[in-house]
Amino acid sequence: MSTVFPKPTSFISQPLTKPHKSDSITTSVSFPSNPRNRSLRTSRVRAGLIDPDGGKLLDLVVSEPRRREKKHEAADLPKVRLTAIDLQWMHVLSEGWASPLRGFMRESEFLQTLHFNLLNLDDGSVVNMSVPIVLAIDDQQKALIGESKRVALVGSDDNPIAILNDIEIYKHPKEERIARTWGTTVPGLPYVEEAITNAGNWLIGGDLEVLEPVKYNDGLDRFRLSPFELRKELEKRGADAVFAFQLRNPVHNGHALLMTDTRRRLLEMGYKNPILLLHPLGGFTKADDVPLSWRMKQHEKVLEDGVLDPETTVVSIFPSPMLYAGPTEVQWHAKARINAGANFYIVGRDPAGMGHPVEKRDLYDADHGKKVLSMAPGLERLNILPFRVAAYDKTQGKMAFFDPSRAQDFLFISGTKMRALAKNRENPPDGFMCPGGWKVLVDYYDSLTLAGSTRIPEKIPV
Amino acid sequence: MSTVFPKPTSFISQPLTKPHKSDSITTSVSFPSNPRNRSLRTSRVRAGLIDPDGGKLLDLVVSEPRRREKKHEAADLPKVRLTAIDLQWMHVLSEGWASPLRGFMRESEFLQTLHFNLLNLDDGSVVNMSVPIVLAIDDQQKALIGESKRVALVGSDDNPIAILNDIEIYKHPKEERIARTWGTTVPGLPYVEEAITNAGNWLIGGDLEVLEPVKYNDGLDRFRLSPFELRKELEKRGADAVFAFQLRNPVHNGHALLMTDTRRRLLEMGYKNPILLLHPLGGFTKADDVPLSWRMKQHEKVLEDGVLDPETTVVSIFPSPMLYAGPTEVQWHAKARINAGANFYIVGRDPAGMGHPVEKRDLYDADHGKKVLSMAPGLERLNILPFRVAAYDKTQGKMAFFDPSRAQDFLFISGTKMRALAKNRENPPDGFMCPGGWKVLVDYYDSLTLAGSTRIPEKIPV
Repeated sequence: MSTVFPKPTSFISQPLTKPHKSDSITTSVSFPSNPRNRSLRTSRVRAGLIDPDGGKLLDLVVSEPRRREKKHEAADLPKVRLTAIDLQWMHVLSEGWASPLRGFMRESEFLQTLHFNLLNLDDGSVVNMSVPIVLAIDDQQKALIGESKRVALVGSDDNPIAILNDIEIYKHPKEERIARTWGTTVPGLPYVEEAITNAGNWLIGGDLEVLEPVKYNDGLDRFRLSPFELRKELEKRGADAVFAFQLRNPVHNGHALLMTDTRRRLLEMGYKNPILLLHPLGGFTKADDVPLSWRMKQHEKVLEDGVLDPETTVVSIFPSPMLYAGPTEVQWHAKARINAGANFYIVGRDPAGMGHPVEKRDLYDADHGKKVLSMAPGLERLNILPFRVAAYDKTQGKMAFFDPSRAQDFLFISGTKMRALAKNRENPPDGFMCPGGWKVLVDYYDSLTLAGSTRIPEKIPV
Repeated sequence: MSTVFPKPTSFISQPLTKPHKSDSITTSVSFPSNPRNRSLRTSRVRAGLIDPDGGKLLDLVVSEPRRREKKHEAADLPKVRLTAIDLQWMHVLSEGWASPLRGFMRESEFLQTLHFNLLNLDDGSVVNMSVPIVLAIDDQQKALIGESKRVALVGSDDNPIAILNDIEIYKHPKEERIARTWGTTVPGLPYVEEAITNAGNWLIGGDLEVLEPVKYNDGLDRFRLSPFELRKELEKRGADAVFAFQLRNPVHNGHALLMTDTRRRLLEMGYKNPILLLHPLGGFTKADDVPLSWRMKQHEKVLEDGVLDPETTVVSIFPSPMLYAGPTEVQWHAKARINAGANFYIVGRDPAGMGHPVEKRDLYDADHGKKVLSMAPGLERLNILPFRVAAYDKTQGKMAFFDPSRAQDFLFISGTKMRALAKNRENPPDGFMCPGGWKVLVDYYDSLTLAGSTRIPEKIPV
């Protein structure tokens, strides 16, 4: 198989146009199945993208011809106002990242998620679903909804942006939700404090009809490709393997080495055109993570500097909020990428982890993420690629896979070290990060100082 | 199908003799499969007992001819001393209640249990496994074990009672274990305080060889039938349906009504000989539960008084400790009974629940237990029978199913009320509990007073 690719000027070779929507709010996309193998060793090479979960990729945005009518309907319904994080989840749902979930979870889906990290489908199969995608309301909102079977979801300006149909209201067991999702109830969990602690005591589930595609108007919407759009792009490029790399941090050359090496291994396995989906998370992150806009600038430099090959890389934003829920969350990160067409998933040390907010240790065992991912029900079709540890090899003057037999040759550049360097406008060792990317980081910390921010983030991830 | 039963004089019609053990430590028992239906409505009537999980009922007790040799081996191994609860779990494992688990969990089993409440088997099937069955050791014990691949498990007298083979030692993430099992980390969880808080920081898993059948010498061992013995008894009685009733409380006439009514429904469905497995939990319980010995006396009276029919009832002790982990634990209670031959499981309001130790509410939503049970992976073969609410019907002077259309006719006798009555040697309304059974309760509270116990249990379950 040989395909000629147009030379991309930036992340994506050309502007993407939203595909034409059918009149149905569900767009069915069928692809040939990939082999249900877990390991590289036993994978067979086949053309076509992996099937979305449940066989159908959902698109919950109302088709253009029906939007006017739906907006009229929404105007008369009881209103539920969404927070910024609610809106991110609605975005996630609307584009089918959580397929086959058709809206915010009802209690049955919530309980299956909390206890089993899966959803049972009517045909007897299961799909993975590890994080609750729920919408909280308080007593007053519940009273206002009364006996209505539908509600309008509204933004901060009180304008309807979606309808939730056939609703179910049930208790929000916050303590239990937190304990079963994070494996702790310790104070200081960023998502919990932002989205759960002060949320209402009820959850409302139902089927979503979203009135318009979600846009943030922050200059980055063009990078927010839906799973449907990503599949189109990946098919256009003739991908016969898609390997996804989730990240919420700047890309250094260790990451790049890993991605390049993964492509090499896939080629060795017989794939002709493995495509990297470099997929930074775009929703809520904790205060000391580098903000999305700066990360996107940094990623752009990395591609410009040729550290990654734009011809075999798609950079796009994953619209989910970040939970920092370790082994539970990494399943969500992987499952959503299946829906976007990825059949290989790179998993690192302590994925979606963070420091324990109170004790001096990581919140999760660094190896549990990849172990749990390899066992997770509903992810059998995904090939899990464990991350090899890269560090700065002083003998080569570049990032390389760590070789324990000559440990003394390697330098691990910690987050603290990287932050100190960037803050002090110093340079890391040559070859740690491409100069353009490093400059973006330095500029970010400069901007914090210039803005007179008294609170310099305590930690910067490496 | 018509079978003549000998008239039982007590719980079991005749003394049970331990079945002859094969030389292998695994005893394979194969039975025809039952239909994989969840609801009564769609069940078909078939003869034979339900298959044990994994297809084989494990027996991890060393066969008699090899015990001497194994004891010699054990004498030379590093020792791990078991607590009373560890011993109860070893008992559970040794008799195959947790089949196909062959010993204390290794990390892979522990993680699958915590995150998914299931174990993946080599043949691609799954079995339910919702509670960690693990053995904790401390730093010092770990150091003593060193590089050994086997350890001897010893009792309080330091004598070996089992060998754990092909061991794996891994970190004991206590906070995460508690959060994911109980859905809370609040102080005051009885099992946690008894068995986890002060336990070691490591877990040791491996394959068990138990040197002798576990006995407690408390006068109740004859009621501790293993799953293998229960299956023999149920087959001897010609059971074509087995419905299990887990309990840790005295039996009142509401319970009895429910069990009798269940049998009636099963007969209506076409079963010829449904047998009730009345299966009180025999391991660790919290301080304010009625102790096992008193409960067994009470259950005996209930059968003597004819409230339950001894010919169609098997009373036996389930050796598991009690976790009070609600929806997570009820799965364990159900799964273990599959291994004992039950294909119907009666589930009540708030199974395995308790009051929240800190807040003024139940720890779990009262309906979550039965909902989670009906969704649980690996329990599809078990027919779940939701508990109908019984209360004292003043118009009939007996316990009856609650009829909301005439709610004023019913009296709910709370635990507090029952305790106050029994403590004050007063009688409950006629028909609440058989007089013989009630007298046992009164005697129990008398015994506490006579013993000069200053701490009268605060709560008594009803």
